[in-house]
Amino acid sequence: MNAPESKRAFRYVGTRPVRPDGVEKVTGKAIYGPDYQAANMLHGAILRSPHAHARVRSIDTKKAEALTGVKAVVTGADFPTTEHIIMAVGESSSDLVHLSRNCMAQDKVLYDGHAVAAVAATSDEIAREALDLIEVDYEVLPHVLGIEEALADDAPVLHDDVFTKGVNPTPDKPSNAAMRVEMGKGDPEKAMADADVTVSGRYTCEAVHQGYIEPHACVSAWDSDGQVRIWASSQGHFAVRSLTAKILLISEADIRVTPLEIGGGFGGKTTIYLEPVATLLSKKSGRPVRLAMSRAEVFRASGPAPGAVIDITMGANKDGMITAVDMEFKYHAGAYPAITAHSGASSALSHYTIENSRVIGWEVLCNRPGTKAYRAPGAPQSIYAVECALDEIAEKLGMDKIEIRLKNAARPGDPNIMGIPQGEIGYVECLEAARDHPHWSAPLGPNQGRGIAGGAWGNYGGPSTAQVSIAEDGTVLVTTGSPDIGGSRAAMAMMAAETLQVPYEKVRVAIADTSSIGYSMVTGGSRTTFATGLAVTNASNEIIENLKGRAANIWEVNASEVAWGEEGAVCLAEGKTDETMSLAALAARTTFMVGAIGAESSVNPGGFLPGVGVHICDTEVDPETGHAKVVRYTAIQDVGQPIHPDYVEGQMQGGAVQGIGWALNEAYLYNDKGCLDNPGFLDYRMPVASDVPMIDTVMVEKFNPGHPYGIKGVGEVPIVPPLGAVACSVSEAAGVRMRDLPLTPDRVHEAMHPDD
Amino acid sequence: MNAPESKRAFRYVGTRPVRPDGVEKVTGKAIYGPDYQAANMLHGAILRSPHAHARVRSIDTKKAEALTGVKAVVTGADFPTTEHIIMAVGESSSDLVHLSRNCMAQDKVLYDGHAVAAVAATSDEIAREALDLIEVDYEVLPHVLGIEEALADDAPVLHDDVFTKGVNPTPDKPSNAAMRVEMGKGDPEKAMADADVTVSGRYTCEAVHQGYIEPHACVSAWDSDGQVRIWASSQGHFAVRSLTAKILLISEADIRVTPLEIGGGFGGKTTIYLEPVATLLSKKSGRPVRLAMSRAEVFRASGPAPGAVIDITMGANKDGMITAVDMEFKYHAGAYPAITAHSGASSALSHYTIENSRVIGWEVLCNRPGTKAYRAPGAPQSIYAVECALDEIAEKLGMDKIEIRLKNAARPGDPNIMGIPQGEIGYVECLEAARDHPHWSAPLGPNQGRGIAGGAWGNYGGPSTAQVSIAEDGTVLVTTGSPDIGGSRAAMAMMAAETLQVPYEKVRVAIADTSSIGYSMVTGGSRTTFATGLAVTNASNEIIENLKGRAANIWEVNASEVAWGEEGAVCLAEGKTDETMSLAALAARTTFMVGAIGAESSVNPGGFLPGVGVHICDTEVDPETGHAKVVRYTAIQDVGQPIHPDYVEGQMQGGAVQGIGWALNEAYLYNDKGCLDNPGFLDYRMPVASDVPMIDTVMVEKFNPGHPYGIKGVGEVPIVPPLGAVACSVSEAAGVRMRDLPLTPDRVHEAMHPDD
Repeated sequence: MNAPESKRAFRYVGTRPVRPDGVEKVTGKAIYGPDYQAANMLHGAILRSPHAHARVRSIDTKKAEALTGVKAVVTGADFPTTEHIIMAVGESSSDLVHLSRNCMAQDKVLYDGHAVAAVAATSDEIAREALDLIEVDYEVLPHVLGIEEALADDAPVLHDDVFTKGVNPTPDKPSNAAMRVEMGKGDPEKAMADADVTVSGRYTCEAVHQGYIEPHACVSAWDSDGQVRIWASSQGHFAVRSLTAKILLISEADIRVTPLEIGGGFGGKTTIYLEPVATLLSKKSGRPVRLAMSRAEVFRASGPAPGAVIDITMGANKDGMITAVDMEFKYHAGAYPAITAHSGASSALSHYTIENSRVIGWEVLCNRPGTKAYRAPGAPQSIYAVECALDEIAEKLGMDKIEIRLKNAARPGDPNIMGIPQGEIGYVECLEAARDHPHWSAPLGPNQGRGIAGGAWGNYGGPSTAQVSIAEDGTVLVTTGSPDIGGSRAAMAMMAAETLQVPYEKVRVAIADTSSIGYSMVTGGSRTTFATGLAVTNASNEIIENLKGRAANIWEVNASEVAWGEEGAVCLAEGKTDETMSLAALAARTTFMVGAIGAESSVNPGGFLPGVGVHICDTEVDPETGHAKVVRYTAIQDVGQPIHPDYVEGQMQGGAVQGIGWALNEAYLYNDKGCLDNPGFLDYRMPVASDVPMIDTVMVEKFNPGHPYGIKGVGEVPIVPPLGAVACSVSEAAGVRMRDLPLTPDRVHEAMHPDD
Repeated sequence: MNAPESKRAFRYVGTRPVRPDGVEKVTGKAIYGPDYQAANMLHGAILRSPHAHARVRSIDTKKAEALTGVKAVVTGADFPTTEHIIMAVGESSSDLVHLSRNCMAQDKVLYDGHAVAAVAATSDEIAREALDLIEVDYEVLPHVLGIEEALADDAPVLHDDVFTKGVNPTPDKPSNAAMRVEMGKGDPEKAMADADVTVSGRYTCEAVHQGYIEPHACVSAWDSDGQVRIWASSQGHFAVRSLTAKILLISEADIRVTPLEIGGGFGGKTTIYLEPVATLLSKKSGRPVRLAMSRAEVFRASGPAPGAVIDITMGANKDGMITAVDMEFKYHAGAYPAITAHSGASSALSHYTIENSRVIGWEVLCNRPGTKAYRAPGAPQSIYAVECALDEIAEKLGMDKIEIRLKNAARPGDPNIMGIPQGEIGYVECLEAARDHPHWSAPLGPNQGRGIAGGAWGNYGGPSTAQVSIAEDGTVLVTTGSPDIGGSRAAMAMMAAETLQVPYEKVRVAIADTSSIGYSMVTGGSRTTFATGLAVTNASNEIIENLKGRAANIWEVNASEVAWGEEGAVCLAEGKTDETMSLAALAARTTFMVGAIGAESSVNPGGFLPGVGVHICDTEVDPETGHAKVVRYTAIQDVGQPIHPDYVEGQMQGGAVQGIGWALNEAYLYNDKGCLDNPGFLDYRMPVASDVPMIDTVMVEKFNPGHPYGIKGVGEVPIVPPLGAVACSVSEAAGVRMRDLPLTPDRVHEAMHPDD
């Protein structure tokens, strides 16, 4: 729908060809992080804290080092000290210090699973045996897991050098409140007082893991002259390079990171856990060292999305115009300061135009693994509360839930919370598509409820580099620095094919290592198809100009008299209009005589636009057990021009299912010692195929005029609406407003039967 | 000596820093071809013909296929047929057909060691066991090994579809004379008749192997969707890609070749032997397959430099001016047509200016492995005869042997054999350096002789691509497509450091795979430092321009008001001349805001100049045994501006030693069945350290005005003069003119004592 004229002009963009990496991946042949083997490699293993919070008095590694087959043991003492990092990086080094301590504890362990030592040995078995021989003397400290508990006056404080950021003047007492952020406009207090109706509530949700199938893994080789080669699965090998270099105080050019296939990241693989450890083990042992997390290690020690406590008050006038929002949310930071509250605050109201608002966000330290990005980081939690509050307002006013959203929807040109005018945002179109969708008007069965919620994510551009080369036989090579998570090889090939006007099958895409392509930011923030795709398009256009020049030389005409068409170069000069020369012919004829045909483009584009979506969810609640089942689900999203619609729909479906899991099932279960009781997919219950219906998708295609192929990022938005959509649906089905996620059967049952 | 003013201006070029890959290589940690391991890889082995010439009636692989652990068996029947190749490539496909048949025989085997079948199995042992189970039914045919024998009327003819090229009209009978080439000018017959003195002689030398330490090896993985990944040691991974693609009729973009470290090539690793075989084994087995030659396989089945029979007549006037040369040489082609005669003919007289000349060269097929390049391919043999004939003329005229060469030396502007004026050739300077060197005037001991010989090689430019990127911390990454054989990582880093004015230690060089960098021709022909170095310099200059622009933006001045100095960008604008910004500061400040800092340059430069050299050799001959020992050796060469003098001197020394081996020791010993009797370093006697004195080197530094750093290629020339220098030296020491190489003790003894 809403297809612009330009869409019909595309030959490859918008089609659904087979992705080049598909068969290898589904047959298990592709080399993911844990699959990589280097010649002569050692096997590493990491000893992890069994305590949620403890001081490390001493570590005795002698027995482990003496075990036959052990080639190196590393502890926090092998890492650069805080003083060294500050000396090298300067005052802004606290993030790096924290990152380093998260990779390997020094002095204190801050959560169950925190790394304290690592071993490299000739086999995995020996490495694990050696871990048992390492003696750590812990002084166990009181721990804290909950947000409110961590903010209590008598809470154990995790760091003695973290003072609340964002508060003026900076407090002089260390605190678990790592950061405060505030945004807003207008006069929310007055507007709230003047509102015809108001609603107020506290919403909560749990920390949830991204649940990527592939655990973190890497191989690192410290070469004799100080150069380091790392093979790793990640969302961005330049981030692996940069962070490893900074933590270990070596220069970036000394590290060459080769990306392996990535089995899901969703934001959780934008940082490093193992690479510096493997690198130091390799430095000590003189051999390549492999480290790979088990599933339990992934759950215990890699970063989830933060859980949240959100207090919201919303006011509206009688005809459904939201006049005021006042909200304060607190996010888990986990063991180290995080920055999710920023995007949580800026996203919260971004799809609505509200005159008076105040949004306050907090990052709260606690004895859990440090939180990390998870699709639209920070947005699902805050928007969950906003969408539920809207639902409550609509109920109070007896108003249609799409109608109230349309009334308040952000439109192009409207000022956002920072006063910046919105671009070509398609939220109204999404709401209209929801309204017109058969799902919205379908009858509900007994014990069923229907929820609807919107959501937004700002999207991003960011630096990307791409090369395009024409091989001697005219086939096309596209090289980027962006790991392919969701089908970007296919999308890049399609944009190159479209620009160069060659068949998709003639284009191959490679992801190059950090020494073979220019800097490219992580595949994340829904930026890759947009930004890297622009670099591919630019480089392809540069090649066309180059080849037009070569053809002009051959035809002895001016370059301006050569056009580029479906057949390659076409001569426009008088008397020579029959002359054409295909890409393949130009490559064969000129590569050796003139030189290689290739172009590189580095971009850092503006022009990106927010993604917005609206989800409709029907659930059916079993009144006897409280079990809520999603029975119908429709995800609607403004996707701009979809490059490969299959993968856009896949992103929408995947994000929706992850959001459903967040809303219904998932939670970290810690015991009273602060240790994780469910570090595995059996007990940490993500939705499986039988838990969800087919997710219906509607792509609203509002072309982005800021990109040659009209792209808007699509990967983040779809996890935003489900929390609200599911919660409102279950609330309706259960007949009681449910505000605390996940909506597990016991919670729903208890809410439905409060007197039992 | 002869250092131009410009030399002193260089800060890094011309210095001798530690090479970045050195420690890894000398400690055995670097990953060469045979070291590479892929996850889940199979081990391949190749069955080779025990016959020098035979028809393959049938191959039965059933028993091998049935062996437990065998996953694939490949024979010639699995390769595209001649018809398929012609259909795909067109009429010019005979080279490819021959290359394919050399990788795996079809119908006929043409030499001892010719591949007839291959196996991939779960272990090397099982693969070799399976080879024994393959039954090949051979019809043994008469074979021919010698050049003259192969040209005899009744010689067995190797190919029924090879007709002599270069003869007009093309003969209608298949022949072992695969090609004839003729060059010349003036009227050599008349000039010869008019000459005051003439000499005539037949010179011969044997086929010799390059003797690289590392055997050929590769791993190939045929992925499910038809994309192929190859890891191989070679002089050019783009050649591996191109040749493998063409032989297997797949597109170049479908093959990604990752270069491994190369343990010597010298021209012998510019082609492929194993890659298509491993690729087909992988296609059949569905797993990566490794193939590696043993030393015996390298000798039996990879290409040596051709042996030669050279007839030369040379005429001069009384004062030593050479007035006429008439020469005809015949080179081994081995089992398939080769093209060495071309460069043999064009090189033969290229360092002299001779008015009347005729040079005829032949390529002769015989039942030996196909010949390949070996440093200055074709030049050592033909120039050997020229230099010896000059020696004989000088003796006849009683003239100094440097004086006669100076008289005839090619000077800048002189027309060469094709009539093209010579560039800034430094042959006169080399001869003068030889004349002035203490070696030339040192007294000789008893039984000692002194030889001198010159030599030349045309050098080359050719397509190369380089990228230069600045990491976020300001360290510099240089990426090329040129395998590092002789220290080119160091040389590239030095040119980037020089251009960017950053310390050498801040520059790291990577060699990228074929999907990560633009097309780059093989490292060979003494082109890499010249051509790839130019691309590195261009890209570095482009980065400077880019960074000047970024600095200008920061300083709010015009880009033309920013200069680039040792500290990075320097502001020239009035009132702001104190402003400087280092490369590191610019990288840190602008990478994320503006975008990645990088540039790519593809070149195919002219401006290359011939390399020339003069070697002086003293030998001492033991009259009792005939053993000739090199007791003093000086290699003088016009090297242009040496980038890293250590590696230039290393090239000169290495080439000289290889030439000494060619002259004194090395030969293939075939038995009467045409099978190689000495396929190993024990019996194929290359010089070892104790065989040669320290090779003294003199670098004549005649700056090449066609290159920003004055480079002339240096790797080929030094193998050219030794054959003549050693032969003339031994002839003088033995008191008898020796014309047949190698000058083994038995030959020398027999020549000294013809009546024994």
